[in-house]
This record gives sequence, C-alpha cells and structure tokens, in this order.
Amino acid sequence: MVLREVVVNSEIIEYNDISGCYILRPWAMEIWELLKEFFDAEIKKLKLKSYYFPLFITENVVQKKKDHFEGFAPEVAWVTKTGNSELEAPIAIRPTSETVMYPYFAKWIRSHRNLPLRCNQWCSVVRWECSNPIPLIRSREFLWQEGHTVFATKEESDEEVLHILELYRRIYEEFLAVPVSKGRKSEVEKFAGGLYTTSVEAFIPNTGRGIQAATSNCLGQNFAKMFEIFFEDENDPAQKKKEKNKRSLVWQNSWAYTTRSIGVMVMTHGDDKGLVLPPRVAPIQVMVIPDPLEDADMTAIKEVCETIVYTLSQAGIRADLDARENYTPEWKHSHWEMKGVPLRIEIDVKDLANKQVRVVRRDNGAKVDIPSTDLVEHVQVLLDRIQDSLFETAKQKRDACIEVVYTWDEFTAAVNDKKLILAPWCDEEEVEKDVRARTEGDLGSAKTLCAPFDQPDLVEGTVCFASGKPAKTWSFWGRSY
Amino acid sequence: MVLREVVVNSEIIEYNDISGCYILRPWAMEIWELLKEFFDAEIKKLKLKSYYFPLFITENVVQKKKDHFEGFAPEVAWVTKTGNSELEAPIAIRPTSETVMYPYFAKWIRSHRNLPLRCNQWCSVVRWECSNPIPLIRSREFLWQEGHTVFATKEESDEEVLHILELYRRIYEEFLAVPVSKGRKSEVEKFAGGLYTTSVEAFIPNTGRGIQAATSNCLGQNFAKMFEIFFEDENDPAQKKKEKNKRSLVWQNSWAYTTRSIGVMVMTHGDDKGLVLPPRVAPIQVMVIPDPLEDADMTAIKEVCETIVYTLSQAGIRADLDARENYTPEWKHSHWEMKGVPLRIEIDVKDLANKQVRVVRRDNGAKVDIPSTDLVEHVQVLLDRIQDSLFETAKQKRDACIEVVYTWDEFTAAVNDKKLILAPWCDEEEVEKDVRARTEGDLGSAKTLCAPFDQPDLVEGTVCFASGKPAKTWSFWGRSY
Repeated sequence: MVLREVVVNSEIIEYNDISGCYILRPWAMEIWELLKEFFDAEIKKLKLKSYYFPLFITENVVQKKKDHFEGFAPEVAWVTKTGNSELEAPIAIRPTSETVMYPYFAKWIRSHRNLPLRCNQWCSVVRWECSNPIPLIRSREFLWQEGHTVFATKEESDEEVLHILELYRRIYEEFLAVPVSKGRKSEVEKFAGGLYTTSVEAFIPNTGRGIQAATSNCLGQNFAKMFEIFFEDENDPAQKKKEKNKRSLVWQNSWAYTTRSIGVMVMTHGDDKGLVLPPRVAPIQVMVIPDPLEDADMTAIKEVCETIVYTLSQAGIRADLDARENYTPEWKHSHWEMKGVPLRIEIDVKDLANKQVRVVRRDNGAKVDIPSTDLVEHVQVLLDRIQDSLFETAKQKRDACIEVVYTWDEFTAAVNDKKLILAPWCDEEEVEKDVRARTEGDLGSAKTLCAPFDQPDLVEGTVCFASGKPAKTWSFWGRSY
Repeated sequence: MVLREVVVNSEIIEYNDISGCYILRPWAMEIWELLKEFFDAEIKKLKLKSYYFPLFITENVVQKKKDHFEGFAPEVAWVTKTGNSELEAPIAIRPTSETVMYPYFAKWIRSHRNLPLRCNQWCSVVRWECSNPIPLIRSREFLWQEGHTVFATKEESDEEVLHILELYRRIYEEFLAVPVSKGRKSEVEKFAGGLYTTSVEAFIPNTGRGIQAATSNCLGQNFAKMFEIFFEDENDPAQKKKEKNKRSLVWQNSWAYTTRSIGVMVMTHGDDKGLVLPPRVAPIQVMVIPDPLEDADMTAIKEVCETIVYTLSQAGIRADLDARENYTPEWKHSHWEMKGVPLRIEIDVKDLANKQVRVVRRDNGAKVDIPSTDLVEHVQVLLDRIQDSLFETAKQKRDACIEVVYTWDEFTAAVNDKKLILAPWCDEEEVEKDVRARTEGDLGSAKTLCAPFDQPDLVEGTVCFASGKPAKTWSFWGRSY
C-alpha cells in the first residue's frame, strides 16, 4: 500500500497545484466529521466553549513573543500585499493560535471569578514546511481543533492535560483502531515555550517510523509571563491582606489533534487492495451490491436490496446501495474495496430464492451467507468484530516492532532495522541532540518519541544507552514523520 | 442601540488589533452552530457532500480567470513570503472558492454519470475591504458556508437556486426573526461572472440601509467555459451518433451565507438595554436568577432554582442558573438583558411560599407569575410568542420604511428620508450606474437591492422613475451596507 496512491484512488484527497496543499474530499471529511462529533461533545462536557479567532497575527506580536514563535518562524506564511498596495507591516498566517488568543485572555481575565477560561476552535492552520510534504501526514495547510484553557492552579491544569490526552487515545484506539502510546515528550521535542508536553504516539510498521498522533501541553506559567495574564487570587494570603497590585500568574494548557489522524489510520490499515476503514469511522459501513445473472429478475433483486438498506439504516447502520447498471458487480466489488467499506452484501437470484444474502468482510475477505431475517444483528456483530480485529492486528504488528536496547550498538542496529526502540535514557537534552547528530542520514535521524507513562521497571544501576550516565527513564526512540 | 458597542458589551465579539478582523466569542459561535445545525442537515438532504479546499489560490489561476476575479482583485490578500524566503509567485488567500474548486471539477467530471456534483464547505474567507469595516457586517475575515453544484441541465440548476434561497429565507425569518425579501439582483449587482443572482435582502430601519443577507447564484455555463468543464451527454443526439469529441458544458450554481447574518439580527432586534435574541437561536433561552432577601433561606431557594433548570433542560429548553453570590440580582438582571436572553425567571422567598415563579420577557419587559407546577408548557408558549412577536415587530418596522416612488424627485426625497424604495425601473445597467452617480454623497449612493419575486402589478405604460423609458420591473432601491 503506497499512501500517496491509495489516498487519491480511494478519493480521500486530491492533489492541489500548490505543493503540500491537498483537497479533502467527502470520504475524508465525513470521517473528520464523525471524529469531531465525538470529540466536540466530550469537551463540551468539560465546559469548553467555542470561539473563532482571526487567521492573522501582526508582526509586532510575532516579534514580542520570539521565544515561542521562533520554533514556527521558518514555516510561517506572510501576507505583505492586499489588492495592489503593500501592507505597512507584514501579517503572519497562524501556524497555531497562542499569540492570537493570549493577549485577549490577558484582557478578559481580571479575577479568580473569570477562571477557568476554556476555549476551543475548529479551523485550519498553515505551516509552510519546506521538507517533502506527505498527504494528510505533513501538509502545509491542515484542519485541526485547538483547545486553550486557563486555570488558577497547576493541579487543575495537570488534571486536564491527562483528561484530554485520554480523549485523544480514544479517538485513535476506539475510533481509528490505531494503537498509541501515551507519554511525555523530551525537552528537545516538547512544545516551544511550554512547561511539558504529553502525547499519544503511533508507529507505522511498513515504514518503520514513529508519528506524533496528538499532543496535550501544559504551558505552565510561561505564556502567562509572556502575555502578562494575571488574576486577583482570593486564596493568596497577600490578597487577604489587601496588599496593592498583588496578583498571581495563571496556569495554561493547549492541546490539538489534526487531519493527520486520518493519514495515520490510512497507513495503519491499508492493504494492496486499497483503504481499510474501521466501522466506527466508515462513512459507509455496508455497501449492498446486486449481482444480476443473465435473465434474472432485476426488479425483484433491487427491491430486496432497497429493503435491506432501509432495514440496516433504521437500525443506525450506515448502509448504501450501488445499483448503477453501467458497472459490473466485479468492478463495484473492487471499487468499494479500494474505498475500504467494511462490509459488502452481495445478492443474486439464488440468494433471493434461499432468502439469504452473502456478506463479505473487507478486512479479511471472509464470506458468509446470512438469512435475510436476522440480518441486522449479524451485521452489527460483524462490524464490532471488524473494529476489534483491526485494532488487535495493528497492535500485534506494532508490538512486533518494539525492540528493547541497552547499548549504543544495539541502538544503531535497531535504528537500521527500523524498529520502535525502547531504551533506558539519562533524559538529558545534550545527549538527545548528540544521538540525532550521530544517527543523521538520508532517512533522517533517530529521535525520542516519548517516555511512555507505562514504564517497565528501571533496574537499579541501569545506564543510558547513549551517554553511559545513570538512566532516569525508559524512552521510545526511532525515526519519525 | 449602537452596533459597535452592543456586540462587545454582550460578548458577541471582541475587537482585534488588526482592523476589520474580529474575535467571535461563544455567544456568537453558539448562534452560528445552531444555524449550521439546521442548514447543514437541510443541504445533506439535498445530497450535498462536505469538502475542504485549500485556503490558497496560485497567481496563475487568478490571472487566467480575470473576468471573474477582477471583482475581488482590490480586496485580495497576497502571501509573498514564507519563513525568510520570497515565494517565486505570490499566492492569493481565497475571497471565495470558485477558482480553487472548478479546475478540479473539470478533472472529476467526465460523463453524465459524474453529475450532479454537489459540494459544500464551511470555512473562513478573506476580503480586505478598504472601506470602513463594521463588526460582523463588513469584516476582512468572516465565516461562511459556500455551496458549489454542477448539473447537466439548466432546469436542475434553476430549481436548486430557488430551493437554497428558500433555506436562506428560513434562516432569517424562522430562526433570526429578520424579515427578508427574495428577489433577483440587477446586472450591476449580480455575482461577477455569473448568469444571474438571487438574494434575500434585509433592511435596517434605524440606519435606513438595505443589506444583502445571502445570495444564491446561477453561474450558467460561464464558469464551465472558463474552466473547461464538459461532460459526455447521453441525451445529446450528437452523442448517440457517436460523434467524436462532442461534449456539453455543465451548468453551475454557487451560494453562501455568512456570519453577517448574526450582525443583521443584532441590528434588527437590539434596543437600549443591549441585545435581544430570538429564542430559536439564543444559546440560553431562560436564565434563572435567585433573589435572596435578608435572612432568606438561600439553600432552599437554590434547590428550587436547580430543579427548575433541570426540568426545563429535560424538556429541551436551553436554561441556565446564575447563582453567583458576588453579584446582586439587579446586576444579573441587566447583565442578562444586555446579553439578550429571551426569558428571565426570578425566585424569592415569597415565590417559594406561593409555589410560583416570576417570569420576565426580555423583548417587552412583561412580567407574569407562573405556578411552578406547569412551568414547562408556559415557558414553551412564551418562547414561541417571543419568536413570533420579534418577527412581526421587525416586519412592521421594515414595512413602514417602504416607499413607492414613480418620479426622480420622489426618489431623491425618499433616499434622503432613508426609505426602502420600491420603484418602477427600466432595468438597464447604464441607468443604474447613472442613478448611483447622481445620488453619490457622504452616506454613499443609492443602489438596487433586488427586484422582488413578489411584484406589484406593473400597470401598462408605467415608466422608469430614472430614465422615463418603459418600466420592465419593480425594484427595491436604497443605500446599503
């Protein structure tokens, strides 16, 4: 399965004449909308409110917030002209919205009564990566949600970071059937200007690369200092003493997941026939295809097909009928296999006579004849099975790539074998930079993915595979997207 | 009611440091989401599919499609730099997406089997208007939906134009309680490059200006020619003769409504106390406010308030409780009046004793005591009444501004009186341009708004108010936003 081909052939995207910009077609947007439906409802339970902040950032703000913005600077697209006139100062298109939003947070927040402030927006952002773009995985414009929250205490902030990370895990594992590891990013890899970054990390066995699936950042008070976001804290003894100008800095989080999630799903499940969609995110879960034999009674067959689609739809199953007469059943079979529809129902005259239908699974090709009478429950069971089995299969493949290493030699060998490396590490910034430099190559260098929350025991005296210093943590390493 | 103040005080928007860009706060976004929920479901019934096309347009396309793009050229924002390097050719940010989408329509459409093609996207667009921006009404970046559809025949195209226009009427009249007139735009005012434009037009009595509320365009085959969008037409006799290279041009529509709709609603219903929200789009329909008297049993009152909110919510009414102790009931009353919440429920100890609550209407201030027992049905009835009465009141005010004129003198007088002018017109482009020139002034010139579908009789021999030529139609005229 070659991603660049399958995403086009399955009508997920279309290439655009601007390199790195892609057209998201209905087959992608309907998956995005299904994920959004789940996630948006979950964060609204957490009292997140919808906002829309402008696409643009003034140069002046960009300059003032260098510490944070430097990370994005090389990728920022600048508007310098409108109509035929030059702008007095160039305007940046948001690569992310901290610098757009936080000056207003500073304006809106006066006292503890204005906290927590919880804000989310669904929009597109632009990161003009010069490195080779990849559809959905690394694109110059992509869709995402960005959550930005403000709290009075670090405790609230820490708690939310993990709550959101769990929602991201569920999107990947429960909806996209993609196994991910929750963990903490290294100092080198964390969000620019933040306190610490947690992430869910996926791994693509075919290419031997890790991929950051989503991040949930605790920004600490760094941005509060940068943007002067204070509040009068009634719990602060100084306040009680009515001391003048005594105000506390807020604690902030920011978190996001993007249309990259669809790309990770495509790479995880796709096969030689094309896309394989997990039922929970498949725009169409069941495609019914009549199989007309010579001199067969087509009207009778079509009627049955329509009844089946109706019955399944009534049961909340996303079913459709491909009754086009100008295509052969064989063509339709491979077409809907290419598009990854989880189940195909075939009906011909024999089935009609036997009051049964033939159900074919996309994931393993298994065929089974089912009596038309109890179709709904059978289909529901099959869809659940496919969802589970896609996840289990992906998990086994991913786990088979994990290699535990203790020494530099084992490490470099594992890097060459494109493994998902788990290694004891001293957790020092300089050491990671050194590892990158020493593994630099055509395929890119090895980096930390995350230090998984689920840590193996770190036996007393274990040393770092790279520096030989005492190991502080187990960390995932590998080449990545 | 001054729009620029009320939209900020009611927390609909916040001003941004980039003039003409505004921050949409939850009070605006929740209204936008309620409208979207209705409209998106309706167009999905019409088999519209969701797409997302890139934000950017290459200069090359812009150049090739001058006829259409010229109209937007003065307002286009250009990206010329990414990171620190100049782009080889500047890239435009979409003011609208015809030029982004249609090259791909040409690629995707081969035969009648690919038709109709129905595409919609929810996104933001950028129009760098140099004239004085107005929050929501005329902003440099705004949110909208843009529908783009392709048909084999003009009949299908014409039919959809009107179907969509009716949905726009419903958004304004049934949801936002804003009266609008359906009609056809003049040649001068129609969508650049299209065949004809239909619109719903609103009028703001306080300012005496018309405002284009939404447009539904039939593009005819003009864009099909521009972008070479052909299909093999089985109904075309030439096809049946298997004549080579005989292909037909498609018929296209495009239609959109924007966050301007929220601005029109604000201007239509707002009063000196602030915003007045129609119940159907109010994020909160009922605000419950406890009114604690000295030595009152607050716990008892709060419990009752919570029960009320729960009961109303269970009945599908958007209700909330303002139990904050650091604000007086009076402050809360004016706060929620400013934000336009349709109904306020007050509860004090007396009410508690009498098992009743006091309900206050935002639109007319009417107060009524209702027994707690049958609260839900009373509230439901009141909300419906408010919705209807807001529309009726707005319609009466709008209709009171309509002035029928037959002569140039009557016309100029009506323009000065800021009327919504209905006049017999020869429907000639040159005449409209001439009227504009002759009415040019500090407040802007008078333009056609639309020729209403609902036409008064045009008595034989009636002449154009401006040219004296035979009148072809009745048309609405006035200054506009």
